[in-house]
Amino acid sequence: MLKTIINRGINLRKNYSQTSSILSLLNDDKLGQHVFIQGWIKALRKQKEVTFLDINDGSTPKSLQIVSSKKNVPKVTVGASVSASGLLKQTAKGQNEVSATSVKMIGECDLEKGYPFAPRKRYEPQYVREYLHLRPRTKTFASVLRLRHAAYLAIHNYLHQNHYINIHTPIITANDCEGAGETFKVVPDNEQLLKNMAKKDVPFDNAYFDTKAYLTVSGQLHLEAAAHALNKVYCFGPTFRAENSISRFHLSEFYMLELEQAFLDDLDDLLDVVEKMIKHVTADLLEHNFSDLETCSQQKIEYSWIDKEFKRIPHEEALDIVTNKLNKTVSSKTGFTKGDEVALTHYFGHVPVFIINWPKEEKPFYMKQINDDQVAAFDLLAPSVGEIVGGSLRENSYEKLKAQIPESNSQLDWYLDLRRFGSVPTGGFGMGFERYLQLVLGVQTIKDCIPFPRWPHNCKL
Amino acid sequence: MLKTIINRGINLRKNYSQTSSILSLLNDDKLGQHVFIQGWIKALRKQKEVTFLDINDGSTPKSLQIVSSKKNVPKVTVGASVSASGLLKQTAKGQNEVSATSVKMIGECDLEKGYPFAPRKRYEPQYVREYLHLRPRTKTFASVLRLRHAAYLAIHNYLHQNHYINIHTPIITANDCEGAGETFKVVPDNEQLLKNMAKKDVPFDNAYFDTKAYLTVSGQLHLEAAAHALNKVYCFGPTFRAENSISRFHLSEFYMLELEQAFLDDLDDLLDVVEKMIKHVTADLLEHNFSDLETCSQQKIEYSWIDKEFKRIPHEEALDIVTNKLNKTVSSKTGFTKGDEVALTHYFGHVPVFIINWPKEEKPFYMKQINDDQVAAFDLLAPSVGEIVGGSLRENSYEKLKAQIPESNSQLDWYLDLRRFGSVPTGGFGMGFERYLQLVLGVQTIKDCIPFPRWPHNCKL
Repeated sequence: MLKTIINRGINLRKNYSQTSSILSLLNDDKLGQHVFIQGWIKALRKQKEVTFLDINDGSTPKSLQIVSSKKNVPKVTVGASVSASGLLKQTAKGQNEVSATSVKMIGECDLEKGYPFAPRKRYEPQYVREYLHLRPRTKTFASVLRLRHAAYLAIHNYLHQNHYINIHTPIITANDCEGAGETFKVVPDNEQLLKNMAKKDVPFDNAYFDTKAYLTVSGQLHLEAAAHALNKVYCFGPTFRAENSISRFHLSEFYMLELEQAFLDDLDDLLDVVEKMIKHVTADLLEHNFSDLETCSQQKIEYSWIDKEFKRIPHEEALDIVTNKLNKTVSSKTGFTKGDEVALTHYFGHVPVFIINWPKEEKPFYMKQINDDQVAAFDLLAPSVGEIVGGSLRENSYEKLKAQIPESNSQLDWYLDLRRFGSVPTGGFGMGFERYLQLVLGVQTIKDCIPFPRWPHNCKL
Repeated sequence: MLKTIINRGINLRKNYSQTSSILSLLNDDKLGQHVFIQGWIKALRKQKEVTFLDINDGSTPKSLQIVSSKKNVPKVTVGASVSASGLLKQTAKGQNEVSATSVKMIGECDLEKGYPFAPRKRYEPQYVREYLHLRPRTKTFASVLRLRHAAYLAIHNYLHQNHYINIHTPIITANDCEGAGETFKVVPDNEQLLKNMAKKDVPFDNAYFDTKAYLTVSGQLHLEAAAHALNKVYCFGPTFRAENSISRFHLSEFYMLELEQAFLDDLDDLLDVVEKMIKHVTADLLEHNFSDLETCSQQKIEYSWIDKEFKRIPHEEALDIVTNKLNKTVSSKTGFTKGDEVALTHYFGHVPVFIINWPKEEKPFYMKQINDDQVAAFDLLAPSVGEIVGGSLRENSYEKLKAQIPESNSQLDWYLDLRRFGSVPTGGFGMGFERYLQLVLGVQTIKDCIPFPRWPHNCKL
């Protein structure tokens, strides 16, 4: 076994990576060497004898300049894919470029056949979004994709280092966790299959699973089952809402980080987990992905909140500020609006604000009561985007939880079992990943933070 | 900015982590110190004066022994949650234990109220699977969950280090990639919402998205869109099949790692990517998670293949071996059976086997033809579990791909666009994550490799 581990047995036929990535050629020490690159043409300038090509291969937002005598360059356009080989050298201005002895066309890009992006033109995000399959080719959106990847991985690794276990909670579920009725149902698209699987006492549409099946609106309840054995757990996957909201903060399919922790009985401890994680992951992105951040931001972004303590105020105080200091009316039915949320973060100097101790009627049944009227819940409001995290301590008494479960949620005996056998105090939260990206990337519309957005009347590709 | 990055601004109210994890107390240098732990009782032995409790908190498969004078221990049972504080010391046998001055009950576990796991009894996986919400509390399955987390993260980090970008391909999609008709459809579970959103020319059930919407069977086509800009990309999420297979290798909801790479035109290069990744990630698990591997394996597992070169043979040769050396009949309709696949890996000394160059009629439309009859495709067969990876070079000629698209797949103009504008040779594969776990963890049934399995007639919780 030890031998296996030490030499790792990775012994393959050849080293096939003769192509250099543009990221490596912009940074490293291959100056003076003959290099081979492959990528797409981002810009093209022809002079009398010489042609300049800016090539990008997706490894960085920056392009590498190729200079070649005109006769060596085939007929190409912006958007075409090419390979080039030649000497990597430094220009008088200190930039790396390739003096190419050979440029070869791989795949043409005939702009007249309907390619939607003309050279040297900037397009509005709304226009680019019409072409989801080509959108990754725009400089801005390629940066968003690299940053989304980096943020996703940074969150996983931060939680791993802090001993949280990732649990893949189910996408298809028999529960509607939030009980808000905003679910999609899931049915095989095959009548014959349903006929073959039909049972006498089961409605026809439910024949596949023997139960009505939904797309998950939250992994929390399942996560709590794992927390009662593994202690510190999280899930970080797709989540669904069948609601008819068309706003720049809503998607029908979005990613949510949900975390649950056992032996946690102080709301402030949970707030610490959230605050530490957001600060750490954001600092990580600023440190490692700054050129992508500069490329994709649609506005100047303010990151000074990373150095400051997040504000923590009771719901009553927030209500008082919005009503009496900001002179707005808050409906007791709908609660704070997005405008109120953003205004609160401005009021506190553009710092994220935790609102704690909520009226129980504004929150779901599983939250722990502090007194007859309030639950130990919180929302985290962030500058520009408003709510990005919501969480609470969970009710861990079997009797109290049983009394609070709404009648409509009849399938939760298993959830009650968690409090019947080895119950522990737990707390947790959910963070909307795309809203977090809106905050950190400075992207106006949530549809521009996810590769293939789905929203009412839209499911392209 | 730099200041922010350097001091990271993480400055919180208190250090709340006064509880020590059992993992840390089994390993580190707190011997002789007063410690505080919280967890669940795994075993209980009462002597005249003294009580021994084995406590586990999910941080490791191992338990920590608490020894306490009988009078300090409340009435507890196996499965109850407790806290304990006392001195960490070493026994004569060199094991760490806590000599507890205080043991407190957190949540009882009344075995007579229906807790399904009795102390000191081993249960068959099939029995444990009946209690999905309590299953993480069994020693074996807790190890599976920690290993699944470790493997998932190891794959992400390996690909990140090799410059692949994770793309969240959509779960809800308008395409049926494989064209096999094994899809689930997705419809809002709210008649009124559909009525509000209905349009004249759109079937009522499709009113939410204006199109029929499915759960994804593969992210490949969407991934190719990203590969044509970012070069090296992957997705690693839930995938769905509405088929009525009840076998120990099938799930209705499972996880698939899919990878696409641009500028790749040699099948051997793609095989190298797969082989390197599997060897690296498996070696990583053996190095870092050995005690969990020992805990969960249902059979002695053979890892010697990590040190060996994976076999690569053409489909014709595989067919010849199965027919003439192993004396089995292969149906030209259904191809190799699971038994054939496993037999092939045995034939080659229990080493994973790549079968390359497949008859084109056995593979989907998007694979690149080598000649009139064959495509540049591969399956990777692994000992015990058979096929775990399938992949190919993709057809990158617009004309050839257009001719190959089946008529039933009418919504693929966008996919053809990828070949119309800046086309490049690409290749990629999909690896069934749970099948990989079956291989490495030595778990017989795929349902025991995922926290909440879904299969025909089963969607518990």
